[in-house]
Amino acid sequence: WVFVWEKGYQETDSVVSSVTTKAKGVAVTNTSKLGYRIWDVADYVIPAQEENSIFIMTNMIVTLNQTQSTCPEIPDKTTICHSDSNCSANSADTHSNGVKTGKCVPFNETVKTCEVAAWCPVENDAVVPKPAFLKAAENFTLLVKNNIWYPKFNFSKRNILPNITTTYLKSCIYDARMDPFCPIFRLGKIVENAGHSFQDMAIEGGIMGIQVNWDCNLDRAASLCLPRYSFRRLDTRDLDHNVSPGYNFRFAKYFRDHTGNEQRTLIKAYGIRFDIIVFGKATVLCDVIVLYCMKKRYYYREKKYKYVEDYEQGLAGEMDQ
Amino acid sequence: WVFVWEKGYQETDSVVSSVTTKAKGVAVTNTSKLGYRIWDVADYVIPAQEENSIFIMTNMIVTLNQTQSTCPEIPDKTTICHSDSNCSANSADTHSNGVKTGKCVPFNETVKTCEVAAWCPVENDAVVPKPAFLKAAENFTLLVKNNIWYPKFNFSKRNILPNITTTYLKSCIYDARMDPFCPIFRLGKIVENAGHSFQDMAIEGGIMGIQVNWDCNLDRAASLCLPRYSFRRLDTRDLDHNVSPGYNFRFAKYFRDHTGNEQRTLIKAYGIRFDIIVFGKATVLCDVIVLYCMKKRYYYREKKYKYVEDYEQGLAGEMDQ
Amino acid sequence: WVFVWEKGYQETDSVVSSVTTKAKGVAVTNTSKLGYRIWDVADYVIPAQEENSIFIMTNMIVTLNQTQSTCPEIPDKTTICHSDSNCSANSADTHSNGVKTGKCVPFNETVKTCEVAAWCPVENDAVVPKPAFLKAAENFTLLVKNNIWYPKFNFSKRNILPNITTTYLKSCIYDARMDPFCPIFRLGKIVENAGHSFQDMAIEGGIMGIQVNWDCNLDRAASLCLPRYSFRRLDTRDLDHNVSPGYNFRFAKYFRDHTGNEQRTLIKAYGIRFDIIVFGKATVLCDVIVLYCMKKRYYYREKKYKYVEDYEQGLAGEMDQ
Repeated sequence: WVFVWEKGYQETDSVVSSVTTKAKGVAVTNTSKLGYRIWDVADYVIPAQEENSIFIMTNMIVTLNQTQSTCPEIPDKTTICHSDSNCSANSADTHSNGVKTGKCVPFNETVKTCEVAAWCPVENDAVVPKPAFLKAAENFTLLVKNNIWYPKFNFSKRNILPNITTTYLKSCIYDARMDPFCPIFRLGKIVENAGHSFQDMAIEGGIMGIQVNWDCNLDRAASLCLPRYSFRRLDTRDLDHNVSPGYNFRFAKYFRDHTGNEQRTLIKAYGIRFDIIVFGKATVLCDVIVLYCMKKRYYYREKKYKYVEDYEQGLAGEMDQ
Repeated sequence: WVFVWEKGYQETDSVVSSVTTKAKGVAVTNTSKLGYRIWDVADYVIPAQEENSIFIMTNMIVTLNQTQSTCPEIPDKTTICHSDSNCSANSADTHSNGVKTGKCVPFNETVKTCEVAAWCPVENDAVVPKPAFLKAAENFTLLVKNNIWYPKFNFSKRNILPNITTTYLKSCIYDARMDPFCPIFRLGKIVENAGHSFQDMAIEGGIMGIQVNWDCNLDRAASLCLPRYSFRRLDTRDLDHNVSPGYNFRFAKYFRDHTGNEQRTLIKAYGIRFDIIVFGKATVLCDVIVLYCMKKRYYYREKKYKYVEDYEQGLAGEMDQ
Repeated sequence: WVFVWEKGYQETDSVVSSVTTKAKGVAVTNTSKLGYRIWDVADYVIPAQEENSIFIMTNMIVTLNQTQSTCPEIPDKTTICHSDSNCSANSADTHSNGVKTGKCVPFNETVKTCEVAAWCPVENDAVVPKPAFLKAAENFTLLVKNNIWYPKFNFSKRNILPNITTTYLKSCIYDARMDPFCPIFRLGKIVENAGHSFQDMAIEGGIMGIQVNWDCNLDRAASLCLPRYSFRRLDTRDLDHNVSPGYNFRFAKYFRDHTGNEQRTLIKAYGIRFDIIVFGKATVLCDVIVLYCMKKRYYYREKKYKYVEDYEQGLAGEMDQ
């Protein structure tokens, strides 16, 4: 009896999944440094493709036209100096932008800092832009394409359901109540659904989980096996313990100037990484006497349309047999 | 007795795995836009490295020398206009390439469209090249290096088996019947083994799963624990429900012209992403009386070379004890 | 009784996790080819961001200023020729750098090889730099941020523990004995902890696993649920079977020369990929009579601070009930 309760009535399988994503949307910025500028997908998705994840840049600190040379460090308590004797040559700690030359040089009219050999000028990331530089990202959309497969039952399905047309896919937006099967999400709504503010999150970045749940009772019609979406901020933050918040990383675009010297534009990119997490278990019922579930499943399959209403309580319908 | 049947005879462990991949191959293209051109690994693998996945570009739409400026949108039902009043300034929907300036301008001699501030000229992706631009990718090869570890049994192995030599690895190609342990796969054969046409898939792209199964009975000799490869198209397609097929994404290469202005080449890359999916369970036998399997395992280990032929049926040999 | 032993006393849950990483450190190199040069994060982390993984370049072979043209292949047994008849035009095998033009041309004063249409000059990777080009990477640091969540128990935590301050995070370095909860790792120490030599590994590259174990008994205080780090080289190497060792890949930086022609710098990057592997199981105790553990858990929760010392042996305290 114990055995029956534990395993006898259910054969389960875990999901195999593939995910692709595609962002859409255009933003405009107008700053003294970069002028009027349009940002599209190729500018703000970094890297261009990943396996189960997509990063959308929402904020940034740009350092233009860096070259390999020497320049003063950004002032802080380890870099401010009064004379060359404060700057030991060839040393670098892990927070430096470069390697000290041994000289103490003027950073501006009032402050002197140790000179470094580095990509110069060095980045000054003391102030994070607020509101976020690409705050318009709130209205960008994200198409998630997800194919799943239950190997044991050889059952596969995609989240673009059979009744979804190309026209519908061009205009729909996911909404938990009104449009729960549209696979296109507005970025602002994803964050909001998880109980956070997009504009707050956009400043320092963070990680959002888009969870796709494919729990399915395969004794029922295949059309009843449907994805359920939920959203969760994965970099949980205690308001009272806000050490090392958000998400950012640095990358560079490399150029040659007209004399052939290498230059780069360094970008400290803040943004939201959307991790698509697919989970699910498929179950098929079987009874104690028929130990090999698969055979039984075909028998149930034949009956499934008749009994479908009885299965609403999961195992309940079967227990009476 | 029930308990014994369920768990008593087996201790299992799930696999920990690391994967690296390396593509090889060169393609030639000759088009009016790009001229005669050679494509190698650094050109068609994007991004250059990923964790369990590799993307090979097989087709593309290139838009050369885009700059930040204004230009007419590509004609479609939302962009075609007759006068400026059709183009509301500063608006952008998620499918736009840029932000409307409010002007209605000639796209060509017969059609006018709304002007946008954008990376100009905007991409025209109405026609996907057919056959695929890099159709020669069919003959590219993919080396998959996979190390696995069963922590509970401290058993590790790699898919480059001990008997594989450097010379063999330079020339072998995986073949399910002739060469099932060569870890180098011809891209065309991967797709074919999954029952699809490479040249069809190359046009709009897709996702292929390379499954590596390491199910092992560790009571047997370590040399009998071998990888088994299988292939599966993960973006399953219903022929009768072909909404949003394939796999593509956009990326850009940024340049400076001789006056220092930023330019970019935008590439809409279609291609095949190969996801390497490693799975497996190791089992070690133990009997009812010895509840702590590990101890028993060492005992079995000592006997394994003697009994190895008896284990062909898995559990059979042990049941008689 | 069997049932009780198997499942009755424990409700378990598997971990949901998000990981971000950030490397810090600067290296100096001075070679005849590249001159004196500083390397920072934007130069040696490729790609700039990944989901559970970070690649740090430690060694490289650079081929500067490649253009699309024709040039002799690197000499090896398939490329050396004596006359044009040895070089069949338009052929390319998977190990070629380009497509044969059909000519046999001088590679240097003594050797002739087949000419190829390719990115020229072709890369010569016969000699891997030793010691590693960026050997200073040993002192780089890696901050790992990891948030976990046990959905069933709605328990979440991050590896930056509540008592960690911003000041501490700026200076601490993980040490298994002295500082086991500092989430910042020195690269050299990670490799050393796994029993390998960083400088050896840096030459040809490899894969390191940083394992974060969150096994927790949630009947105890949340503050006792702590991450435990361990390190493991994932590309296990037999010294006596050293076929295809290490980890490397190729990428290119694309430029335009002053006449607008495309050039690229090809980099064969050797380095260490750090895969962050998070695992863990949360358990909550319950007894035979109360089958639905969750209800019981709240009851235990209330008692947990009182009983916490009794739980040191895991299940022991509960068995007596």
